[in-house]
Formats: sequence, structure tokens, C-alpha cells
Amino acid sequence: MPDQNAKISDVILKAAGVIGERGFEATTMNDICRATGLTKGGLYHYIKGKRDLLYQIMLFGMKHLEESVVEPVSAIDDPEEQLRTLVRLHIQIIALGQGMITILTDEDAGLEPKHRKEILKRKRAYFDFVRGILTALRDQGKLADVNLSVATFNILGQVLFFSRWYAAGGDLKPNDVAEQIAATSLNGVKK
Amino acid sequence: MPDQNAKISDVILKAAGVIGERGFEATTMNDICRATGLTKGGLYHYIKGKRDLLYQIMLFGMKHLEESVVEPVSAIDDPEEQLRTLVRLHIQIIALGQGMITILTDEDAGLEPKHRKEILKRKRAYFDFVRGILTALRDQGKLADVNLSVATFNILGQVLFFSRWYAAGGDLKPNDVAEQIAATSLNGVKK
Repeated sequence: MPDQNAKISDVILKAAGVIGERGFEATTMNDICRATGLTKGGLYHYIKGKRDLLYQIMLFGMKHLEESVVEPVSAIDDPEEQLRTLVRLHIQIIALGQGMITILTDEDAGLEPKHRKEILKRKRAYFDFVRGILTALRDQGKLADVNLSVATFNILGQVLFFSRWYAAGGDLKPNDVAEQIAATSLNGVKK
Repeated sequence: MPDQNAKISDVILKAAGVIGERGFEATTMNDICRATGLTKGGLYHYIKGKRDLLYQIMLFGMKHLEESVVEPVSAIDDPEEQLRTLVRLHIQIIALGQGMITILTDEDAGLEPKHRKEILKRKRAYFDFVRGILTALRDQGKLADVNLSVATFNILGQVLFFSRWYAAGGDLKPNDVAEQIAATSLNGVKK
């Protein structure tokens, strides 16, 4: 019998790799068995089915986003520096995330309704976190004349699109790209 | 027997609506019959199958993008005004496009390989068109110190993300959003 605690994160990362590449609906349980090296019986030791696996991947991804981006950014005082750091860190976890963050963005429709609601709530909290930084920037008189929600979506659009094009981006280094997206995001909304 | 020329665009638009909402893989031929009001026999008069339908939708979408965005923007001289108009027009066709432009962005994986190659080539031409405008802006000394491809992706990321969030965007008017995205896109990459 496999050791559950030791390997669940490994199963999630490997499954995220194959789902991120092919899309959730097009990925079969056989694909996931091949990617994880488990039999179907072994796989069902960790997850209840394909939809549950998608939910586990999204929970893992959200936790990663909250711990690796929201927590460190919350500890910064200056909103301009918060925004720059947020974009930089979010790009870094996309670059290293084996498709997990792409799945978070693209595959909501595959979740069971109650799980979908829960994940959307946590995504909404992230959106509100970014919007809060822009609100603080506005309160300092540094924001251009732009709707706060539109500005938030424009920043997230640049960050999340990176997960689509980066694999095809040739020899650009993730850290260089992160700096450039941080700069264009910030310049786009600043006065 | 249905009148082919009169209704193919209608079939494509209605099918795009349901595929844009549910995703290509999750949409069944029955869903498409319901959306178009055709029987399966009637539907196969217009298309060879589900993958062929996806290809027809993408061809229709690319043609729309080329005629409604690339052509008018090509007629403008000033690159700054070109970029502003491009973003504005692209946002407008997303807002009016019944999911067609979202499908263009998200559903490549569902195409047959030869069709996928053809659509990717036309998308690449659009990317190069936007990148060309940024190159002209750089040649005028107006571009910030940013990689041309990254800057192009950042503008397209903001535009394409609009197709994801707009339905949930409440009472924002497409034209207002188009102006704001045009402004943040341009300010983000300008010196």
C-alpha cells in the first residue's frame, strides 16, 4: 500500500503537468496513471476520481499562491512596492508551477459545483487583495484615472497570459520577464 | 434541405455561443443541435463533425479579427494611435463576438493538426502585426526599455483576459472598458 502522506503532493504535481498540457476534459485517467507511474488502483488510493483530482490540484495551487505571494506581499508597507513584488512572485510561481497555475485559471468548469464555489471564493479573495493594493495606491494619489476593477483585471491578465506564452517564449529568463511585466503593469495604472 | 449559404454564419455564431460557455471538449453534438435548432442530419449538412465545426468557428473569428481590427488599423499612420485603436476595436469584437474570440484563444487543442497549424500561423501573423506597431513606436523613441515580444504579450494578455471577465464585470460598458484598457496598455509600454 502506498504511503499517502509522502506522495500525494508528488501525484498532484505530476497530474498537473499532464492536465496543464492537454486540458482537463481531454486528459484520461490512463494519461494520469502514465504520468504518475501509478496503477488505477494505486491512483484511487489518493483521489476519489478525475474531478476530485482537479479539486486537489486547485487547492494545492491556491495554497501555493497564498503562501508564496499573498503572505510575503502583505508584509510590505508601500503599495507600489507591494504591486511590483506581487507581479514578480506570481510570475515566478507560474514559471516553476508545472502547469498548476494555468489549471487554476482555465479549468473551473471541470469542478463539482460545491468545489467550484469554494475555489471561486478563494480566487475572488486574491482579486480583492490585488484590488486593495490599487486602492491604497489611489489613496496616495498615484493611480491614473482608471476603474479599480478594470485596472486589477489588466494586471492579472498580463500575469496569467504569461502561463500561456512562456513555454513558447524562447530563451527569455523568467526573472527578466517578471521584472518587465512588473514594470509594464505598474506603469500602465500609475499616474 | 436547408439553404447552406444563408445559414452557415448563423450556425457558426450559435455554436460558438454554446462552445464558448461550456468549453469545446465538454460540449456535445446534442448541445449544438439544441443551440442551432437543427437536427443532427441538418447539422451535418453544414459541417463534417465537431472538430470541423471548431475549425469553421476559428476561421470565421480570424477573418472577423483581420477585417474588423487589422484592416482599419493598417490605414492609420501614427503607431501610438494604431495601438490605441487596435485595443479598442479588439475589445469591441470580443464584447460582441458571442464567445468566438474566447474560443480562438482557448481551444487550439481541439483542432486537427493541419488546421491547428493553419490557425496558429494566422494568430502568429496577428501577434507580428501588434509587435510591428510596437517596433515603430520604439523607432520613434517612445517605447520604454522592454522586450518587444514581452510588451506585445502584455498588451494581448490584457485584451484577451477581457473575454474571461467581462460577463462577470457588472455594469461596465464595453466602450468605457475599451478606452481604459487602451490607456493602460499604452501607458504600460510607453516611455
